[in-house]
Amino acid sequence: MGTLFKLTTFGESHGASMGGIIEGLPAGIDVNVAEVQEELNKRRPGQNALVSERNESDKVEFLSGLFEGKSIGTPIGFVIKNKDQKSKDYSHIKDKYRPSHADFTYEKKYGLRDYRGGGRASARETVCRVVAGALAKQVLHTVGIRFSTYVKQIGTVQLNSQEFYTADRIENSLVRCPDEKTSEEMEKIIAELKDDGDTLGGIVQCIIENVPAGLGEPVFDKLHADLGKGMLSINAVKGVEFGSGFESASMKGSTHNDIFQSDGSTETNFSGGIQGGISNGMPIVFRVAFKPVATLMMTQQTIDAKGEAVELEGKGRHDACVVPRAVPIVESMAAIVLLDHYLRNKTIHI
Amino acid sequence: MGTLFKLTTFGESHGASMGGIIEGLPAGIDVNVAEVQEELNKRRPGQNALVSERNESDKVEFLSGLFEGKSIGTPIGFVIKNKDQKSKDYSHIKDKYRPSHADFTYEKKYGLRDYRGGGRASARETVCRVVAGALAKQVLHTVGIRFSTYVKQIGTVQLNSQEFYTADRIENSLVRCPDEKTSEEMEKIIAELKDDGDTLGGIVQCIIENVPAGLGEPVFDKLHADLGKGMLSINAVKGVEFGSGFESASMKGSTHNDIFQSDGSTETNFSGGIQGGISNGMPIVFRVAFKPVATLMMTQQTIDAKGEAVELEGKGRHDACVVPRAVPIVESMAAIVLLDHYLRNKTIHI
Amino acid sequence: MGTLFKLTTFGESHGASMGGIIEGLPAGIDVNVAEVQEELNKRRPGQNALVSERNESDKVEFLSGLFEGKSIGTPIGFVIKNKDQKSKDYSHIKDKYRPSHADFTYEKKYGLRDYRGGGRASARETVCRVVAGALAKQVLHTVGIRFSTYVKQIGTVQLNSQEFYTADRIENSLVRCPDEKTSEEMEKIIAELKDDGDTLGGIVQCIIENVPAGLGEPVFDKLHADLGKGMLSINAVKGVEFGSGFESASMKGSTHNDIFQSDGSTETNFSGGIQGGISNGMPIVFRVAFKPVATLMMTQQTIDAKGEAVELEGKGRHDACVVPRAVPIVESMAAIVLLDHYLRNKTIHI
Amino acid sequence: MGTLFKLTTFGESHGASMGGIIEGLPAGIDVNVAEVQEELNKRRPGQNALVSERNESDKVEFLSGLFEGKSIGTPIGFVIKNKDQKSKDYSHIKDKYRPSHADFTYEKKYGLRDYRGGGRASARETVCRVVAGALAKQVLHTVGIRFSTYVKQIGTVQLNSQEFYTADRIENSLVRCPDEKTSEEMEKIIAELKDDGDTLGGIVQCIIENVPAGLGEPVFDKLHADLGKGMLSINAVKGVEFGSGFESASMKGSTHNDIFQSDGSTETNFSGGIQGGISNGMPIVFRVAFKPVATLMMTQQTIDAKGEAVELEGKGRHDACVVPRAVPIVESMAAIVLLDHYLRNKTIHI
Repeated sequence: MGTLFKLTTFGESHGASMGGIIEGLPAGIDVNVAEVQEELNKRRPGQNALVSERNESDKVEFLSGLFEGKSIGTPIGFVIKNKDQKSKDYSHIKDKYRPSHADFTYEKKYGLRDYRGGGRASARETVCRVVAGALAKQVLHTVGIRFSTYVKQIGTVQLNSQEFYTADRIENSLVRCPDEKTSEEMEKIIAELKDDGDTLGGIVQCIIENVPAGLGEPVFDKLHADLGKGMLSINAVKGVEFGSGFESASMKGSTHNDIFQSDGSTETNFSGGIQGGISNGMPIVFRVAFKPVATLMMTQQTIDAKGEAVELEGKGRHDACVVPRAVPIVESMAAIVLLDHYLRNKTIHI
Repeated sequence: MGTLFKLTTFGESHGASMGGIIEGLPAGIDVNVAEVQEELNKRRPGQNALVSERNESDKVEFLSGLFEGKSIGTPIGFVIKNKDQKSKDYSHIKDKYRPSHADFTYEKKYGLRDYRGGGRASARETVCRVVAGALAKQVLHTVGIRFSTYVKQIGTVQLNSQEFYTADRIENSLVRCPDEKTSEEMEKIIAELKDDGDTLGGIVQCIIENVPAGLGEPVFDKLHADLGKGMLSINAVKGVEFGSGFESASMKGSTHNDIFQSDGSTETNFSGGIQGGISNGMPIVFRVAFKPVATLMMTQQTIDAKGEAVELEGKGRHDACVVPRAVPIVESMAAIVLLDHYLRNKTIHI
Repeated sequence: MGTLFKLTTFGESHGASMGGIIEGLPAGIDVNVAEVQEELNKRRPGQNALVSERNESDKVEFLSGLFEGKSIGTPIGFVIKNKDQKSKDYSHIKDKYRPSHADFTYEKKYGLRDYRGGGRASARETVCRVVAGALAKQVLHTVGIRFSTYVKQIGTVQLNSQEFYTADRIENSLVRCPDEKTSEEMEKIIAELKDDGDTLGGIVQCIIENVPAGLGEPVFDKLHADLGKGMLSINAVKGVEFGSGFESASMKGSTHNDIFQSDGSTETNFSGGIQGGISNGMPIVFRVAFKPVATLMMTQQTIDAKGEAVELEGKGRHDACVVPRAVPIVESMAAIVLLDHYLRNKTIHI
Repeated sequence: MGTLFKLTTFGESHGASMGGIIEGLPAGIDVNVAEVQEELNKRRPGQNALVSERNESDKVEFLSGLFEGKSIGTPIGFVIKNKDQKSKDYSHIKDKYRPSHADFTYEKKYGLRDYRGGGRASARETVCRVVAGALAKQVLHTVGIRFSTYVKQIGTVQLNSQEFYTADRIENSLVRCPDEKTSEEMEKIIAELKDDGDTLGGIVQCIIENVPAGLGEPVFDKLHADLGKGMLSINAVKGVEFGSGFESASMKGSTHNDIFQSDGSTETNFSGGIQGGISNGMPIVFRVAFKPVATLMMTQQTIDAKGEAVELEGKGRHDACVVPRAVPIVESMAAIVLLDHYLRNKTIHI
């Protein structure tokens, strides 16, 4: 992932640890490790009654690349130990393909798999993205770039806004929806679903301000193409849209065109801050659609490796709705892509 | 673009020519050059009364990599000359930033630009993608993979279907919408818009059958993440969604899960043929949203390089709706990504 | 080839044309196309009586990326037509594997090949490297970096020097050896060999001055590792060494260490301008060994595709010693690698 | 490092640990972890009286990618803890630039550095290459590819042979020179040097048998170009040559050409198993030149960060000759490159 700012990761959910290597972090940056840990805590299950009850501590250990509190320009190795390994929990799915999971596709691709807790396909893999994203954000903050990422929709409850909310307002909500009333409705429908053992999808919105004009490459590595790939690579994501998004399909050009003002800003922002694949200085705006999590706390019909029909019981501890926990992941991926393009853009002139 | 099957392109719309280099085309493939040209003709403006009146011949010349009708495994160089260069048409925009075009962002990024006809930012660049995609499709056909790509929506007129239509039915329609009645409605609203000098967006749907299970990499290079990046890199695209897409956000897991049948296929296909980033053997289904084209045949307010307010007249020859012409581009990008992953997947076992 | 400054090439020696795409050339550079052509002329066969008699014009045509005399930051497409295609010259080798050529290995790898004149394996491919290298040098000149590349050895005749010679002195010599007396000896042994139909190898030395300290990446992409790969990728190269090179193997550390002077320069330069993979500001010095060309104007024994013993006659027009023509190729590859690392190094700090 | 089989590493010599991520190891391979550890032990200092007295245990811990004794196709994360961290040993060099080390160049590049024991520039980094190389060899062994890597020269003592020696004969020698008499001479000159506090360079030769014809890409990623880059990226390497190498410069084509025999093998092997960048089935042969280690156990003159002349005392525990310990590193890098090209070659045909 990345051309100049690069993240490489490893780890199965029930192996020894997750971890990664971050390359291209600029040298001489004051790195705040505690802030990285805070971002990880936002992703962690077990934050409150609404989300999963597992208590993973997700403590990051940095192994290289930092010296006396600063980045030294060399690769940053890190690990996050997998403490809570109840492997026996998963024996009941060893030979079964869970519906809409990656069990079947991994088996077809590799011929074998670590069936414990989803192995490499587990969303636990995203801890590494949050570590890299937290570092990327610390760099981007030094040049004034700011993020506002929050839950816009859960199930059918939707917040109709494209505002840049502060982190405080977002974190005030158990579901990371900055509007109090909408947040309460969301909490309510999640609580209801949970009792049924069912799950819900949702939409996360990300707004990035103070992005300088000029980031992004004109053809294949358009800024939104790379952001989009980053988003689609997050577990459970089914779609991504920028600015006017899918609604633009039914709009007319005369409405959709963003008219320039004398300072180079635009009256509207249907472009979502990106024109021709390159940032124009307006806020970058995009939305990411998450499907409902496939692990249900109810009995489902499925098949085993021999193609025989079997029953799959709902066991373990799982979230009824992971969308609030996806917020730091979306923001992390956005920061990783943005820093990469920020660095790439430094090489346009000699 | 790509890891093993790679496309690199060059060309400004009013320079000498467009062109590219295709690397990684397997050796020994019977290459049908006429078929490549046919795909280019589908993308070409001036196909009928509904689309642009420019008459670009878009003839591809292959310069290497083919010998006695077969691919020989070496890079395939190709050019498509830019014949219809009426540069004077563009003098009126030399110092003006057209709204929702890339004029402003290119200027900010590079400090200078080829202002003639959009230069590198022109959608003319996509001819190269169609060449590479046409070759990729010829390879994929040898292993049975088939594509059905068509217009699902223009403006507010929508075809409600996820069917695999034949190329004949799609090409029968002037707007590449395989349902006759919907097609007529679409043609009608485009014709109306054209008289106003306005433009319309739309949605293209792509369905790919006979994709073997196992294509795609588990984390960052998920099959749909790479397909999504390919789509978002096409001019005017504002969003992409797979399978259930944005609708999944308001669905429950118990509805959304695709239940396995004994042969490994699934009863429903909300996953859109991809689970955990890896193809599962079901049809791959995705939709791409195009905004209305920014070039209008009407007068608009904008600014020039000094920030002064200026009027921009509508000149030249432009499409009121490019979505039908986007169909071969979407299919080409899908084929490029799919062949790349097909080849990558050959290296999973020694 | 390259991370930020990238060259992708295509072309078989007897196809329509050679060509390539250069990505990452900084924007706003005044490009001198005539100078590029001059570099190509240095590589061209038929320059004088000593080298090949073929008269290829090797005229480069730029197809994109330049506008009003300047680079605009977009990819630079270029082609060089293959004019002198006497395909019939090669019918006698269609089914024969020429000794120490790539005929056999291409057949084994691809299962088929363009047998005319070596196809993709022909050293004609290096024209594209010279185009990219000439542009890279124009950029590097703007920051003061200078190259001196010349023939150090042909056969057993050797110039014992590590001096930075001017281009004038080098070009004064028919064999590009800047010492007049050594040059004459070299010319003499080439002339002798030519009458026998035999060929000779040699060594090219490259010295680069004014390289700023700090270029190169610490581990895999060490500056000399990338330079070395570039050199070894040139046809007929069998070895490369930096600074003290192979002689260092028999030296003691107390002799070999380059002692610092107060200005950061070193008394000796056994390191060849690179320490720990990173330039130290001293001249970069390396040598490249070329084997004698495999095409002989004498009859050789070999086998055909069926493994039958056959005779191979010496036909066509070939150089008795290509080392003088390799000088611009070595310098071009050095410039390509150096510009790439120059740009990469711009991203070390935010 | 690598296109399909990839190694990414991290770690400073006195940080918490070294480590890396291996991507692209084929799935379903029986991995012998003990054999990996044995390779690491060969690289380790303190193996016998001739080499460094530090006692690093260099124990590798695999964190992912292996399950029930087999590779599962996912990335393999691993760490090797840095146990023996005597940081105080290095306080005397904190502000001094050691001659022919990377202290000066790191400072110029990054503006700051981890000065303890060379930090990232320490040869300790090569432990990660040995881990990846050991795994690559296990895969290559399954297809019959075999390596013979040994010391060919130390100082002026040289073994004149291009034989494929068994591992037993190589490991029998304290200096990994398979000829008993030459080995003794080498041991003697190292022992002498050590008393003086001085160091010696040398040459490692690597021979690889049973490589199938067809590996390597024709232009930039020639098999020997990638092998060469791998070798030049190893600490202290000043040169690399293939087959006839630098001697080819003074040879005639009529002598140098490798004449085919009816089975496709060649009478001689001046090509070193590679023609046109692609393996021809003959043994791959190359040699790597190592300079004498820059750390001396004697006092040297140098400068500090302010450019003031200072004395540098010889302290710590260092090898008088690291060439024997370089043998597993050279072999590892060769295996990494070879497996990468083996996998790439699987995608030439559909």
